[in-house]
Amino acid sequence: MSSDKTVYLPADRLGALRLWMVDQKVDAYLVTSADAHQSEDCPEHDRCLFWLSGFSGSLGRALVLQQEAVLFVDGRYQVQASKQIDPALWHIAHLHQTPPEKWIATQGEHSALRIGYDPMLWSVDQADALRASLKTCGPELIPLDDPFSAIWVDRPASPVGKVRAMPERLSGLSFGEKLAQIREELHADQIELWVESRPDEIAWLLNRRGSDVPMHPVPLSFAIIPSKGAVSWFIEPQKIAGDGMEGLDVKPFAPAEFLSRLSKEAEGKRVGFDPMFAPDAVKASAESAGATLVPRSNPIMIRKARKTEAELKGYRDAHHADGIAWVEYCHWLSVEVPKRAAAGNPVTECEAGDKINQFRQAVSGYLEPSFKPISAVGPNAAMCHYNPTPGRDAPLLPGSLYLLDCGGQYESGTTDATRTFAFGGCPEALKPAATAVLRGFLSLSMATFPEGTFPHQLDALARMHLWQLGLDYDHGTGHGVGHNLLVHEYPHRLGKLPNCFGLEPGNIMTIEPGYYLEDGFGLRVENQVEVIAEESGFCSFRPLTLVPIDLALFSLDRLTQEEVIWLDAYHVRVREALMDGLSPQCRRWLDHATKAIAARGRE
Amino acid sequence: MSSDKTVYLPADRLGALRLWMVDQKVDAYLVTSADAHQSEDCPEHDRCLFWLSGFSGSLGRALVLQQEAVLFVDGRYQVQASKQIDPALWHIAHLHQTPPEKWIATQGEHSALRIGYDPMLWSVDQADALRASLKTCGPELIPLDDPFSAIWVDRPASPVGKVRAMPERLSGLSFGEKLAQIREELHADQIELWVESRPDEIAWLLNRRGSDVPMHPVPLSFAIIPSKGAVSWFIEPQKIAGDGMEGLDVKPFAPAEFLSRLSKEAEGKRVGFDPMFAPDAVKASAESAGATLVPRSNPIMIRKARKTEAELKGYRDAHHADGIAWVEYCHWLSVEVPKRAAAGNPVTECEAGDKINQFRQAVSGYLEPSFKPISAVGPNAAMCHYNPTPGRDAPLLPGSLYLLDCGGQYESGTTDATRTFAFGGCPEALKPAATAVLRGFLSLSMATFPEGTFPHQLDALARMHLWQLGLDYDHGTGHGVGHNLLVHEYPHRLGKLPNCFGLEPGNIMTIEPGYYLEDGFGLRVENQVEVIAEESGFCSFRPLTLVPIDLALFSLDRLTQEEVIWLDAYHVRVREALMDGLSPQCRRWLDHATKAIAARGRE
Repeated sequence: MSSDKTVYLPADRLGALRLWMVDQKVDAYLVTSADAHQSEDCPEHDRCLFWLSGFSGSLGRALVLQQEAVLFVDGRYQVQASKQIDPALWHIAHLHQTPPEKWIATQGEHSALRIGYDPMLWSVDQADALRASLKTCGPELIPLDDPFSAIWVDRPASPVGKVRAMPERLSGLSFGEKLAQIREELHADQIELWVESRPDEIAWLLNRRGSDVPMHPVPLSFAIIPSKGAVSWFIEPQKIAGDGMEGLDVKPFAPAEFLSRLSKEAEGKRVGFDPMFAPDAVKASAESAGATLVPRSNPIMIRKARKTEAELKGYRDAHHADGIAWVEYCHWLSVEVPKRAAAGNPVTECEAGDKINQFRQAVSGYLEPSFKPISAVGPNAAMCHYNPTPGRDAPLLPGSLYLLDCGGQYESGTTDATRTFAFGGCPEALKPAATAVLRGFLSLSMATFPEGTFPHQLDALARMHLWQLGLDYDHGTGHGVGHNLLVHEYPHRLGKLPNCFGLEPGNIMTIEPGYYLEDGFGLRVENQVEVIAEESGFCSFRPLTLVPIDLALFSLDRLTQEEVIWLDAYHVRVREALMDGLSPQCRRWLDHATKAIAARGRE
Repeated sequence: MSSDKTVYLPADRLGALRLWMVDQKVDAYLVTSADAHQSEDCPEHDRCLFWLSGFSGSLGRALVLQQEAVLFVDGRYQVQASKQIDPALWHIAHLHQTPPEKWIATQGEHSALRIGYDPMLWSVDQADALRASLKTCGPELIPLDDPFSAIWVDRPASPVGKVRAMPERLSGLSFGEKLAQIREELHADQIELWVESRPDEIAWLLNRRGSDVPMHPVPLSFAIIPSKGAVSWFIEPQKIAGDGMEGLDVKPFAPAEFLSRLSKEAEGKRVGFDPMFAPDAVKASAESAGATLVPRSNPIMIRKARKTEAELKGYRDAHHADGIAWVEYCHWLSVEVPKRAAAGNPVTECEAGDKINQFRQAVSGYLEPSFKPISAVGPNAAMCHYNPTPGRDAPLLPGSLYLLDCGGQYESGTTDATRTFAFGGCPEALKPAATAVLRGFLSLSMATFPEGTFPHQLDALARMHLWQLGLDYDHGTGHGVGHNLLVHEYPHRLGKLPNCFGLEPGNIMTIEPGYYLEDGFGLRVENQVEVIAEESGFCSFRPLTLVPIDLALFSLDRLTQEEVIWLDAYHVRVREALMDGLSPQCRRWLDHATKAIAARGRE
């Protein structure tokens, strides 16, 4: 830390923040788990909520006052939070039932409260919603610079991961072509400047990939895209040292210059931004510069969702390689799980989760995992965000269900799939629910729908069979997947919540229903799919994932003829695609795993 | 007109409006088809757009400038509008592709435009959206008093329909009980004043029904509901002359006092309103009075959607009577259509549409139709909003498909159903599409879903079979229905668009998929249903409509076993409910029309 920065004592973190609050003349301060890019996983440098409270979950808010500190987390984190915070310092509220603005309204004398916040970490929509809520009960929201630069001693530095090029033969479009398409869209709203804060949009546009955060190959940075002339790219120089920027009409700047350059470039212009992601500070800067604000959905996000032919080929290649890895792994499981269990040295969740990524390292194009594997046996699989802890991970034993949800970043695409294994058959009691999951997976996989259908329209197809049994699952049904970008890619989210981005040919989605019984078991079937155009002009899903589905979990006699035909055809496709690429012992396994249903004996 | 009002000459209507615009110092004026209550059908007095332009459709906007007049209508009205307006005076734009604010933005010198509008006729949401759009290109929106009071010579008076009581034995809750429940909901947001502009909400709350507009038994009026004390009801005194207001803590005022009393009562208070419906003038009045605005969804609308046991019994009674009328009518059709066709004097669409309402007049509790019957033969049925014109209506002939969508207002409920009749069988070519419609109707009718499921989640169940054939229908799948209130009742709309009002036991909906081939034919199957709780805690739909479905349209061998079972069970229920109430010749008809599918011969 530089010597002109005040060092706050005492050593306790809340105390330090409270002293800073006095200095800043605010009565309260709002902390968020988000970074300035609204990243799903942010670098250590940005995990301020964790540093302050001890709560390590991916989503939370905190409101710190002089006499109280409240942590706001949703249902899935209530138990975890209670174990991680110091109850003498913090209490926990429910993020959705009593969000910060509601909590404030219930406190007595609050109408004159000055509440500080960092306008780089709250999106325009979030800050507007906060201001609107608070307006009805009095407190004022005060934008302030980041307190943690002052009070977080030994704060880890922001990452400076190297940037590499995504070749045009894989992206299918040059930067110039992409920029021209985006500018056409901006022109329709007479937008003269687009402000971009999402690293995956920047990566796509510039045909670049980053390495700031493992498994998230996007360069943390900002950009300003004018209707004419060079794109301003606000990125640590170290990240692009040596990048010749061929074919790029890009002028790099230090990240610290982002808001000041925005003020300059925005003067009197029509400035576009996506209020769902852009920092509130962007809106404030543009407003101060006399710009006309044009909030709208992100044309880059929308264009990027329609993959090019080259990208689609890349996904298919990546899934071919991923399928080889999966099948080699499934064969390994089929041999090792019973053998090691019999030897009293069972395979464990961590080992199993690592093993598939070892098989991935052997196939071409693989770079790194796309997310931390969810490798879960029995009741652990009922916890949706379970990651096994070494030394405390469960054994894979015959008679248990094993769920593996994992994927890879490849040079030419990103994969994400889930398979549930029944070692030695599935208990009869679980089969109705399991079969309903499979039938939901099939109903959605086999759906035909008009181009432009909204994802929320299709969600029930995956749930309806479970609903007939009075069952359901408490997560979304699918998400977009990036092209060696983020495994959870916007705009598409297939679930019960409205998502008004219509599906079109070239979109990449997952289909992933499941069923979970707390303290019992969990199962999920997930394929990644591409949206394709049928001859009729309607659309359907074609699987990208090439991995056999373990049918021992299901009552196959409950399937309709169409469902059996689809499953058999899928398995034929998997067999024909992968057979030649496998080791000899795996070929026998694959042949068995992809046998037509009618040809399988009853277990 | 009083003598101190300026009479605008010349006699042409656009000219009169333009002179008034000069007086008011605005460059343009925005006209809307809406009234101050956002009614689906408004009284003649409020049909200003029709008076001005000649366009008679239910939804439109107009922008009048000195040199131009633009009419904005959606896809369904483009052809009709072109036939109704004078092309020398007006041109037509597409309401969704180029709404007024977009049209303005494309005009050259527009940044200084002053655009007048009537803030009583535009909802808060609509006016806010207009202001936000216009903000990005310059023009100012200027609130002005209604011009048509000045320029519309011989304007029809506003209706003064008599108000009657809805007895508590039918409503199930007293005004006091309803008010207490609403106040509890308002208290959660510390709302001190709720402003109500929707007549059906007022009718429900006060246990009153109106008669201002045929088929819409709701008293056009406004109300202010304070957290304590008397409700202020702004209603023409004539409407409630003689109403003792027993059990009602209500103070009546003249409608003209609405905004001024709002200003008084709102001073310094937290004022709630539904921005989707409340006039923009309400927001402006409350703001000027220093109120804190609390826009939110309407607690009355939400509570009202959960029908009481008494209301549910009332719907069932009304549907029993309606079923008798339908079956007597179906029998009449089965005899008269072939007989009159053979005699060269066929039954026509108008006659058929009137006839069912004659049968309704014979059953107990019937008051009036709930909407103008859609009575359509062959290609006319492909036009979704077709109403036959006397003298130009088509004949019902054997070999044609006949679609009838109609309903009644009963003392104890409102009905709405559609049946499609195939006189003498259905052409083979139509059967696949027809069967897909039926299967969609059945999939949704047979669905089980968690309480709180959003309507948009269920829409695909009704479409998925059509989608498999590359077909679809271009309207919503269902809507809420009032309790002797509006046949299209909010908040529930079941379609592709987001509707985040979860379904709960006690909600009343329609299920109405169809298929339409332009210039060919149209068919629709519609039941009204109640949402019921299953033992599991999940919900399902139970039909209220008791009318046989003409199965001659469909390929019954394409139905699943479950679908056949459901249809047979439904027909048993119809037969058992209605048999005793029918005339002897109808009983034979009903027996035949409700025969189990397996027992029917192949035609």
